[in-house]
Amino acid sequence: MMPLDDRGLLLGDGLFETLLVKKGEIILLEAHVARLQSGCMALGLPAPDLEDVRQLCSSILSDADRTIDRLALRLTLTAGSGGRGLDRPADPEPHIFASVAPAPRPEGPADLSTSDIRRNEGTPTSRLKTLSYIDNVLARQRAAPAEALMLNNAGEIVCAAAANIFWVQDGRLFTPELGCGALDGVMRRQVMAIEPADEVRAPRAMLERVQAIFLTNSLIGVRRVASLDGAPMGDHRLLARLTERLAAVS
Amino acid sequence: MMPLDDRGLLLGDGLFETLLVKKGEIILLEAHVARLQSGCMALGLPAPDLEDVRQLCSSILSDADRTIDRLALRLTLTAGSGGRGLDRPADPEPHIFASVAPAPRPEGPADLSTSDIRRNEGTPTSRLKTLSYIDNVLARQRAAPAEALMLNNAGEIVCAAAANIFWVQDGRLFTPELGCGALDGVMRRQVMAIEPADEVRAPRAMLERVQAIFLTNSLIGVRRVASLDGAPMGDHRLLARLTERLAAVS
Repeated sequence: MMPLDDRGLLLGDGLFETLLVKKGEIILLEAHVARLQSGCMALGLPAPDLEDVRQLCSSILSDADRTIDRLALRLTLTAGSGGRGLDRPADPEPHIFASVAPAPRPEGPADLSTSDIRRNEGTPTSRLKTLSYIDNVLARQRAAPAEALMLNNAGEIVCAAAANIFWVQDGRLFTPELGCGALDGVMRRQVMAIEPADEVRAPRAMLERVQAIFLTNSLIGVRRVASLDGAPMGDHRLLARLTERLAAVS
Repeated sequence: MMPLDDRGLLLGDGLFETLLVKKGEIILLEAHVARLQSGCMALGLPAPDLEDVRQLCSSILSDADRTIDRLALRLTLTAGSGGRGLDRPADPEPHIFASVAPAPRPEGPADLSTSDIRRNEGTPTSRLKTLSYIDNVLARQRAAPAEALMLNNAGEIVCAAAANIFWVQDGRLFTPELGCGALDGVMRRQVMAIEPADEVRAPRAMLERVQAIFLTNSLIGVRRVASLDGAPMGDHRLLARLTERLAAVS
């Protein structure tokens, strides 16, 4: 239970991470904790130690159903209790907790539908996985059962509601630069470490001329997009190669 | 205490209201509940009844310190527990709770400092008082002790971090239209019911040519801006008139 004066609850003041657990093994824990720590820096919050997070994860996983192959492990860190109105207390003491849920791999490729809810390119929090997630919740809800393609206020491609986006054009890989309002995704980095991508600012119309589109996050790994606003999208051997190379971490 | 699977806590999925309580009397309760109900509609959540909210408020106030003349009464409504990732359960059951804190009237006029954190004009949630408030928290923190003037991604004037903004030019009243990304403030409506205002889209530079600027919210009522980014701002008899006319509700 969380106290009612928690700033995560009252103001979305905090951060989260979603990690994949495969057959009991936490995938890319260090990368997720590093991002959480860097998010804390950006928000002006004290960051948790890797070892403390590791213990928290072990503890929650020891209670989890071991017959489930794939679990989502969520870490939530709030700015803690107190303060007055928007103002934090002088020395915020974050609350941190973990939870687990089944995370079956989605079946087949995704359909993508352009959302009318825009990402905010004009705030550093768009690059962070903050608890202020209502726009993504709404974008996803409106697009369901399709995935939501989110643009920013300049009409540039940014991300899906819960995933980063890549596309292949002339055999090369592209993804929106973080300044567009995209989350600095752990799986996004994994992809770019294998296959260099051009980080660009590109209008929505760009996606009508590409060979393939795919989405990435820590739970789905790499997922092909089958259609965009009803128009069928192609495949590319790059996706199969990435999926194979990322098999151990997705 | 709040369960750890609450969607307000996990995703900023919910709404809040901040009401002034003067000598035990809740100010503009109906207007705040009406806004909360309309916010629930916009987010697709079941809305609470006025009578239920009234009882919740009475209950929390019966425990409050009666020697304090001015209290802030905060109502928080979350989308409730459960769902999977971003997806809400089929029939969300909101959690609602209230809290009180002292709300002394701020001393003197405000200094205003333009924030580099932008409001998102491209989402309906900018017009609502959602729990996803991290950008306002950061804007206020960076501007303190000044108040933060927030622009949108088009560079248009929107609001302060916790208040609506008005200005007087050629004796007429102006305020950003809601489509700029401004909250549909209860005190904003009160002001406009007394003194019609032109709702406009205006660039930041507009404020360099005005006679007076003031901020409004339910706790401060009308508060004059003494300076903008260090440049002194004037006063106008309209402010005194509004302050007088709004004395009963601020």
